[in-house]
Amino acid sequence: MIDRRSVLAIAPLALAPRLAFAQAPAPQMRGTGDLGVIIERATGSVLIVETTDRTVLTRIEGLGDLSHASVCFSRDERFAFVFGRDGGLSRIDLLGGRIAKRIVQGGNAIGGAVSDDGRLVAVSNYEPGGVRVFDAETLALVADVPATSRSAARSKTVGLVDIPGRAFVYALYDAGEIWRLEIPVSEAPRLTRLENVGKLPYDGNVTSDGRHYFAGLFGEDGVVHVDLWKEPLKAERVLDGYGRGEAPLPVYKMPHFEGWAATQNMLFLPAVGRDELLVFDLSTLKELGRVQTYGQPVFAVARPDGRHVWVNYAYPKNNVVEIVDSQSLAIVKRLEPGPAVLHLEFAPRGHEVWVSSRDADAVIVYDTRSFQEKARIKASKPSGIFFTARAHVIGK
Amino acid sequence: MIDRRSVLAIAPLALAPRLAFAQAPAPQMRGTGDLGVIIERATGSVLIVETTDRTVLTRIEGLGDLSHASVCFSRDERFAFVFGRDGGLSRIDLLGGRIAKRIVQGGNAIGGAVSDDGRLVAVSNYEPGGVRVFDAETLALVADVPATSRSAARSKTVGLVDIPGRAFVYALYDAGEIWRLEIPVSEAPRLTRLENVGKLPYDGNVTSDGRHYFAGLFGEDGVVHVDLWKEPLKAERVLDGYGRGEAPLPVYKMPHFEGWAATQNMLFLPAVGRDELLVFDLSTLKELGRVQTYGQPVFAVARPDGRHVWVNYAYPKNNVVEIVDSQSLAIVKRLEPGPAVLHLEFAPRGHEVWVSSRDADAVIVYDTRSFQEKARIKASKPSGIFFTARAHVIGK
Repeated sequence: MIDRRSVLAIAPLALAPRLAFAQAPAPQMRGTGDLGVIIERATGSVLIVETTDRTVLTRIEGLGDLSHASVCFSRDERFAFVFGRDGGLSRIDLLGGRIAKRIVQGGNAIGGAVSDDGRLVAVSNYEPGGVRVFDAETLALVADVPATSRSAARSKTVGLVDIPGRAFVYALYDAGEIWRLEIPVSEAPRLTRLENVGKLPYDGNVTSDGRHYFAGLFGEDGVVHVDLWKEPLKAERVLDGYGRGEAPLPVYKMPHFEGWAATQNMLFLPAVGRDELLVFDLSTLKELGRVQTYGQPVFAVARPDGRHVWVNYAYPKNNVVEIVDSQSLAIVKRLEPGPAVLHLEFAPRGHEVWVSSRDADAVIVYDTRSFQEKARIKASKPSGIFFTARAHVIGK
Repeated sequence: MIDRRSVLAIAPLALAPRLAFAQAPAPQMRGTGDLGVIIERATGSVLIVETTDRTVLTRIEGLGDLSHASVCFSRDERFAFVFGRDGGLSRIDLLGGRIAKRIVQGGNAIGGAVSDDGRLVAVSNYEPGGVRVFDAETLALVADVPATSRSAARSKTVGLVDIPGRAFVYALYDAGEIWRLEIPVSEAPRLTRLENVGKLPYDGNVTSDGRHYFAGLFGEDGVVHVDLWKEPLKAERVLDGYGRGEAPLPVYKMPHFEGWAATQNMLFLPAVGRDELLVFDLSTLKELGRVQTYGQPVFAVARPDGRHVWVNYAYPKNNVVEIVDSQSLAIVKRLEPGPAVLHLEFAPRGHEVWVSSRDADAVIVYDTRSFQEKARIKASKPSGIFFTARAHVIGK
C-alpha cells in the first residue's frame, strides 16, 4: 500500500534564474505532437521543449532525485510521467507547464511504462522490490505486485515495458525471473512467472511489435529471450557466453537495454564490458556479426528508418557518438558533441536527433543526413531526452 | 503555377443540424495525440474526434468533394491536411475546430503527404497530372512538378508517399514510371525518374522504414518494387502474373495500396480482382503464401503489433471485416460492422480499431482482443478515418 504521508504538496512553478530562455505563457493552446522533456539530473528539474523550432518552453522544478530518471507520456501527449530514482512519480502537464500531480510511490524506483490503452501507469521499484500500477489520470493505486519469489524474499525489478493488452513485462534482478503482469479492465490481475531465466537480469526491453522481450544478464555474459506470442511463455538463452575465453574488460557503465536498436529484423545490442555491439537476427536469434566501437556502448539507438544506428559510450570515452550503417555494419561517422554524452533521442521520422552533453550543459541538435549541428540548447546537466511521439509506440 | 482565382474564401464553421453531438468549445486547450478526423464524403464535411473517450468534438464543413479524400497531419499534430478529390487542399485546425486555410490547388487530386521535417505538404494530381508541393504552414507553392514524360504528355500521379530526407515518391499512371522528388532546404529540387516500370501503375506505398516502395499495376497483374536504399534506384517486377492461367474475376473496386499490411518482415497485399491476399517475404520479395478471403480485399491493415491483419472487402461483400492471424495465415474472426465498410484505423498501439460503415451512418469501435463493440459513433456517410499518430510515421 502507498504511504499517504509521502504524497507531497508541490510549490508553484519557480524558474531557475541561472539559465536564460523564453518562458512560454502557461497554460497555452498548441499541438503536443512535437513536445519533449529533458531531464536535468542534478537539479531535480526538467525542461519542456518543442522540436519544430527547437526551443525551450519552460522549466519545471521540484521533481526530486532525477539521476537515472525516465519519462513516458499519456496517450493524448499532453502529460509526461517522470519516474525519479527516489520513487517519485510526477504527472506533468506539458501545456500548463506545471506538475499536475506527484506522489512518492516507493523508496527507490527505476522507470515505468504506460499501458496500451493509456489508462495505467506502472512503476518498477528497487525498494520495496516490485511493481506498482496506478491510474494514469489520478495516480490512485490500482495494483501492488511485490516481487517475492522462491529464490529471493524480495527482488529489485528491472526492464519494465508495456506490451499490448493492458500488460507489462519485467525482470526480477535478485531472483532471476521474468514476469508478465496483465491487468484486464474488469477482472483480477493475472501474473505469469518464468523462473530460473539466468543470473541477475539487470535490464530488459521489448521490440516495438511487443513480441520479443530480451533481458541482459549481469551474473553471466548472456542474454535471455521470451517470445511473448508463444504460449506457454518460455525463457530461452540466446548469445550465451559471448565473451568467453577472452579477457574481460572492466565494466565502466552498464549499458541500458533501452539502449538497443531493432532495424530490418536485426537487433543491435551493446555488449557488457566490451567495445562492441552484438548484432542478432530477430528471426533466428543467432548472432549475425559484431561492430567494433570506440568505447563501451551505453545506448545504441536506431534512427526511425533503421538505416543508421547511433551509439554513445561509457566513461572515459563518453565524449563521442558514432553512427553505424545497419546494412554494412560499418561506422560511417564519428561526432564529438561535448563531454559526457548521456542520451540521444530522434525526431519521430528521424530527420533530426537531440544529444545531451551533461558537462557542456547543452543539448545539441544534429541533422541526421548531413551530420551538421543545427541548434544548441542550454540545459543544466542534461541527461535523458524524451519526445511525446513515444506515447504511440509499444514498449516505450 | 497555381491559379490564384481558385483560392476559395471559406465561410465560418456551420454545424449540420441532422446529427446530434456535443460541440466542443473552440479553440480548446488539450493534448492532440489522441485526435482524429473522419471523412463524411457525401456532405464535404469532417468530424474531429478524440479516441480516449471516443467522442466527436466538432464537425467542419465546406471542404468540397471528399469522395476518395485522405488526410495527413502536421508534425505537432495540431493541423490536419485534407486532400479532396476536387483538388482542394485544406489545413484544418483541430484545436480551433475550423479551417485555417484552404486552396484549390488542382482540378482533380488523389492524396498527399507531409515531408519528414514537417515543412512541406505534397499533393498528387490527376488533373493537371503532376505533383505540387506547398509550405505546410502557409500553403504557398514551393514546387510544381508536372508529370511529363516521353511516353505520355501528362500523366496522372498516384501512390504519393513521403520518405526520409524531405523527399517523396510516386508513380505516373499513364506513363508507367516511378519518380523520386527530393526538395533540399537550400538547393534546387532533384528528380529521379524510373521509366518503363510496368503498365498503368494505379497506386503505390512504402514500408514504414521508407525503404521498399511498391506499386500495383492495372495493365497487367504484377507488382513493381523499388529498393530506395540502393543507388542507383531500379524498378524491379515482383509477383509477376499472379493470376495467370486462372479465370479473372470482375474487379469490383481497385484495392488501395494504402491497404496493405507489413508485419514481421511480411507484406500482405490485396490481389486485384481476386478473393485473396498475397503474402510476400520482404527480404526475398518472394511469395510466401495466399490467404483466401470472403471477398475482394480493399484494405488489409496490420494491427500495430503486427499480430493480426484486418481486411475489408469490395461490393457486394462490403458488410464484412475479417481478421487474419499473421503467423498462421488463418482467418480467426469475421465481423459484420454494418453495410458498406469503407475504412478502418487502429489506435496507435492497437488496443482499439475504428471501422466506418457508410450506409449505417456510423463508425464502430472494437476492442481488438475481445472483438467486442465498445462504441458506435454517428457520422454522415463516413469513409476514411485518420488519427494524428500518423504524423509520426514515415510514409503515412
